[in-house]
Amino acid sequence: MSFYVYLSGEIHTSWRDEIIGGAQEHQLDIIFTSPITDHAASDAAGDMLSADVSSESPFWRDHQSAKVNAIRTQTLIEQADLVVVRFGQEYKQWNAAFDAGYCAALDKPYITLHDDNIIHPLKEVNAGAKARASTTAQVVEILRYVLKA
Amino acid sequence: MSFYVYLSGEIHTSWRDEIIGGAQEHQLDIIFTSPITDHAASDAAGDMLSADVSSESPFWRDHQSAKVNAIRTQTLIEQADLVVVRFGQEYKQWNAAFDAGYCAALDKPYITLHDDNIIHPLKEVNAGAKARASTTAQVVEILRYVLKA
Amino acid sequence: MSFYVYLSGEIHTSWRDEIIGGAQEHQLDIIFTSPITDHAASDAAGDMLSADVSSESPFWRDHQSAKVNAIRTQTLIEQADLVVVRFGQEYKQWNAAFDAGYCAALDKPYITLHDDNIIHPLKEVNAGAKARASTTAQVVEILRYVLKA
Amino acid sequence: MSFYVYLSGEIHTSWRDEIIGGAQEHQLDIIFTSPITDHAASDAAGDMLSADVSSESPFWRDHQSAKVNAIRTQTLIEQADLVVVRFGQEYKQWNAAFDAGYCAALDKPYITLHDDNIIHPLKEVNAGAKARASTTAQVVEILRYVLKA
Amino acid sequence: MSFYVYLSGEIHTSWRDEIIGGAQEHQLDIIFTSPITDHAASDAAGDMLSADVSSESPFWRDHQSAKVNAIRTQTLIEQADLVVVRFGQEYKQWNAAFDAGYCAALDKPYITLHDDNIIHPLKEVNAGAKARASTTAQVVEILRYVLKA
Amino acid sequence: MSFYVYLSGEIHTSWRDEIIGGAQEHQLDIIFTSPITDHAASDAAGDMLSADVSSESPFWRDHQSAKVNAIRTQTLIEQADLVVVRFGQEYKQWNAAFDAGYCAALDKPYITLHDDNIIHPLKEVNAGAKARASTTAQVVEILRYVLKA
Amino acid sequence: MSFYVYLSGEIHTSWRDEIIGGAQEHQLDIIFTSPITDHAASDAAGDMLSADVSSESPFWRDHQSAKVNAIRTQTLIEQADLVVVRFGQEYKQWNAAFDAGYCAALDKPYITLHDDNIIHPLKEVNAGAKARASTTAQVVEILRYVLKA
Amino acid sequence: MSFYVYLSGEIHTSWRDEIIGGAQEHQLDIIFTSPITDHAASDAAGDMLSADVSSESPFWRDHQSAKVNAIRTQTLIEQADLVVVRFGQEYKQWNAAFDAGYCAALDKPYITLHDDNIIHPLKEVNAGAKARASTTAQVVEILRYVLKA
Repeated sequence: MSFYVYLSGEIHTSWRDEIIGGAQEHQLDIIFTSPITDHAASDAAGDMLSADVSSESPFWRDHQSAKVNAIRTQTLIEQADLVVVRFGQEYKQWNAAFDAGYCAALDKPYITLHDDNIIHPLKEVNAGAKARASTTAQVVEILRYVLKA
Repeated sequence: MSFYVYLSGEIHTSWRDEIIGGAQEHQLDIIFTSPITDHAASDAAGDMLSADVSSESPFWRDHQSAKVNAIRTQTLIEQADLVVVRFGQEYKQWNAAFDAGYCAALDKPYITLHDDNIIHPLKEVNAGAKARASTTAQVVEILRYVLKA
Repeated sequence: MSFYVYLSGEIHTSWRDEIIGGAQEHQLDIIFTSPITDHAASDAAGDMLSADVSSESPFWRDHQSAKVNAIRTQTLIEQADLVVVRFGQEYKQWNAAFDAGYCAALDKPYITLHDDNIIHPLKEVNAGAKARASTTAQVVEILRYVLKA
Repeated sequence: MSFYVYLSGEIHTSWRDEIIGGAQEHQLDIIFTSPITDHAASDAAGDMLSADVSSESPFWRDHQSAKVNAIRTQTLIEQADLVVVRFGQEYKQWNAAFDAGYCAALDKPYITLHDDNIIHPLKEVNAGAKARASTTAQVVEILRYVLKA
Repeated sequence: MSFYVYLSGEIHTSWRDEIIGGAQEHQLDIIFTSPITDHAASDAAGDMLSADVSSESPFWRDHQSAKVNAIRTQTLIEQADLVVVRFGQEYKQWNAAFDAGYCAALDKPYITLHDDNIIHPLKEVNAGAKARASTTAQVVEILRYVLKA
Repeated sequence: MSFYVYLSGEIHTSWRDEIIGGAQEHQLDIIFTSPITDHAASDAAGDMLSADVSSESPFWRDHQSAKVNAIRTQTLIEQADLVVVRFGQEYKQWNAAFDAGYCAALDKPYITLHDDNIIHPLKEVNAGAKARASTTAQVVEILRYVLKA
Repeated sequence: MSFYVYLSGEIHTSWRDEIIGGAQEHQLDIIFTSPITDHAASDAAGDMLSADVSSESPFWRDHQSAKVNAIRTQTLIEQADLVVVRFGQEYKQWNAAFDAGYCAALDKPYITLHDDNIIHPLKEVNAGAKARASTTAQVVEILRYVLKA
Repeated sequence: MSFYVYLSGEIHTSWRDEIIGGAQEHQLDIIFTSPITDHAASDAAGDMLSADVSSESPFWRDHQSAKVNAIRTQTLIEQADLVVVRFGQEYKQWNAAFDAGYCAALDKPYITLHDDNIIHPLKEVNAGAKARASTTAQVVEILRYVLKA
């Protein structure tokens, strides 16, 4: 059966494409899944439910959209055999750390992908991870190794 | 039986004392628990195991310490009836978001405590929370309400 | 893999067909499941076991039928990736609220579908839901968003 | 160890007091717990968090309060050895059916307490119950029996 | 997806064939599974491991065989959507009651199939069952109903 | 903390008293629990709910009583650290085998107590057991050993 | 559906090939999975992440590689219907006993394969096993029996 | 509440006493538990059940004793907040690695205690551990840190 990998975290760089491309190059039997990576669409995920909430109450608009997004992300994380959690250089990225904690509690294997300068603030996240990579090429290497016949 | 509340997150302000003091004032039957909140001690939590790791390899020193800390935090979170997760204005605070995700996956009730200016980046964390407070007084109010005879 | 959606609740209006039709229109890869929606058949689900129970003892006839129905509904709810719970304007509909509570305890994502005038009595049900829609078109929108490539 | 009984449902009649009184009369070692049964307080449970939400957006006010209430109810239901779910003659009482479904999914024993005229709409709720009583005296009898030395 | 039905219990009558035949007649999409129903083979299931155990120590021979059988039965029960547990007129049939208890603890739906004269000793087994049938035709009726489109 | 032992099965001989007496003699810190062992009371456990059911419909009377009994037995089995399941020489005793299967599925340690002449029909029950004793003295020996300081 | 068998333990003899060959000979519908059995590759599994760790710190090199290996092994063990754990004559083989304990806690059926001279030190491992074989031919026999139509 | 620590593994050196003594010295509120550490008693744990099995069949004697021991060890491991697994220099010690695997699957925190020369064969065991200590003094240090007020 195929191996499911969920790609969590940063949505403003090309890291997902690099990993997916690398896996294709090596013909790995992997099905990659992701949250919705279109930032504006994700922020507006619940707007079809009550459009007016968005202008009046930023908290509830966010709340409504985050829950709609969770229908997708919770299901895909639970289906995944492995979750890759990417932390970029910018933004708070608390959703990425949240996903890592979610995986940790479910004993779902996850690996992190981030630069050296954020090793220290990610120490609790890495403590529960199966690996920490600094490049997408390393993630592809892990996938190749894990799926070796 | 007593109600267990774990206080997760920010360690540089007095929010824990304010909540504990407020609960005492109202004579609430609550046992509060926390991670080690002494920053230097927490960073050095695993140094007794291999002191040299700390200078040679910052990643593994952090790794070792974070795992020792997890012995305490994982147990206390699982014992808690409620977790309060505090996000301050500074630092990455990925450990706080990680704890929230851990609670979410276990279906353990948690509430967040943070200012309005970080509502948006915390939307996924708040989507799984039972409440979001902006002041410690509000947290004490919630505790009073929840424990009403 | 296909996405499984269980449609729980009201059986006297066309809401199921509207959602299924909307999903087909957008060619969503969804398998919809439902309880038996033929009211008389559902009430008689256990009558093949002891026909006489039905006239003598309404409680046990209901009991017997409800348990036979549960063979189907419990299995389908557990297989579902998402449950839509519809509350109409009439009847007690406690089975719908029961299904919602069942989902909540399993941490199975569910959304509700109901009119504005019953928001207040559904507040506990909505507290555990990922979304609350008021029209079937909104449910279809959620499905489209959640299944976006 | 004491036996924990959570009393869920109707808040406008004296059924809780009758059961608690009956248990005391027979000196049963039971700790009874309940949701907040003050209707106005329960509806306002989250108002300390954002008072303005209540006037502007009834849905979100309900949402916020229902979640604060859930901190209490979810914990007490999970601690209970037995849940008694009371359905009265009035109101929608979807929260009671929701609690029953929650118990069913956790395989937590629960019994129902209701009059004969609502047997039929409660058939799914009763299918998962360990017993259905029609009077509080019967509930006390069950408790006496279950706790017999 | 197909519906999985495990047929547990009595191995000396044709009840399995009757149910499977009835399901085929109605073209139900069911995959039926069973324990090894060849009595002698089942008793000897572990003899390939240490043939001498069989003559010397009847207890350990039985132990060894029962555990080999459990590799099959435990897996098939856990895969099943429904378990049918048949109690015949003869033998102790504790394995059938054991399977029923196993299902009850896992909250796996099961139904029983037995004659009226053993209703009383099966009362605990039936208390956890979704239905009790007295003929194989009734079991087929239940399957038809449960799988209705 | 005390060790909890649930004594399941046969209710017509003195085996429970022998084990409890033996444990007291050795001053073992054990809390013993049991189902209601008064046969008539157990059969009538649900009669307070609808007295008429007993004469009209033996199946539903048994059903109702067995479920009331399950409130007690399910809770006590789940609280137990060890379950002792006694099979006597008479009666069907399917409830005892049912309890054993329940324990097996929960991975709750249980031991059996029975004579040699029923080893073979109990082979599946014993396959999941931690031990099989033939005398109450052996059970007391096991308890002494297990609780050794 | 196919039966999944994970082959854990010794990597220096041909036992895996013998079992797989035997299963093919009997045309059993089994999918066999294994850890990476190339010793050097397995020891180096994490070296792509930080090559320098290997020379400086043998503990952390092992740690890193063992965690990368766990991505594969944990997933495959959880997917397996049966795990075969092979203990050879040489080496510590703690990973094999670790896998057995992992299976035991998950209630995942496993069997052991080892010579008579290590029966005693494997007694705890065998206590949780469904069978103990001494030859690969016996394992094939078990598989044939378990998968009999 | 007290912190429970289970001390698993090697039974021929004084490591347990050193840790317990160290904890007492620092007045830590810990309840330590252990398997039966009397080697001969442990090997004979099941001999009271069928004394003859011991001479005739070493495999089944071991089997019977290991299962009796498991009544104690399984319960104590599940009650523990932390498990310390000690690997000495001698013997196979597969039971220690088995306990570690058991903890890993339950997500129960455990730490290992062993000398440097067995780091490599313990790499999978350490991959799941929260810490690896080489001296009992280090274990005491961890306990002091984890229990700090």
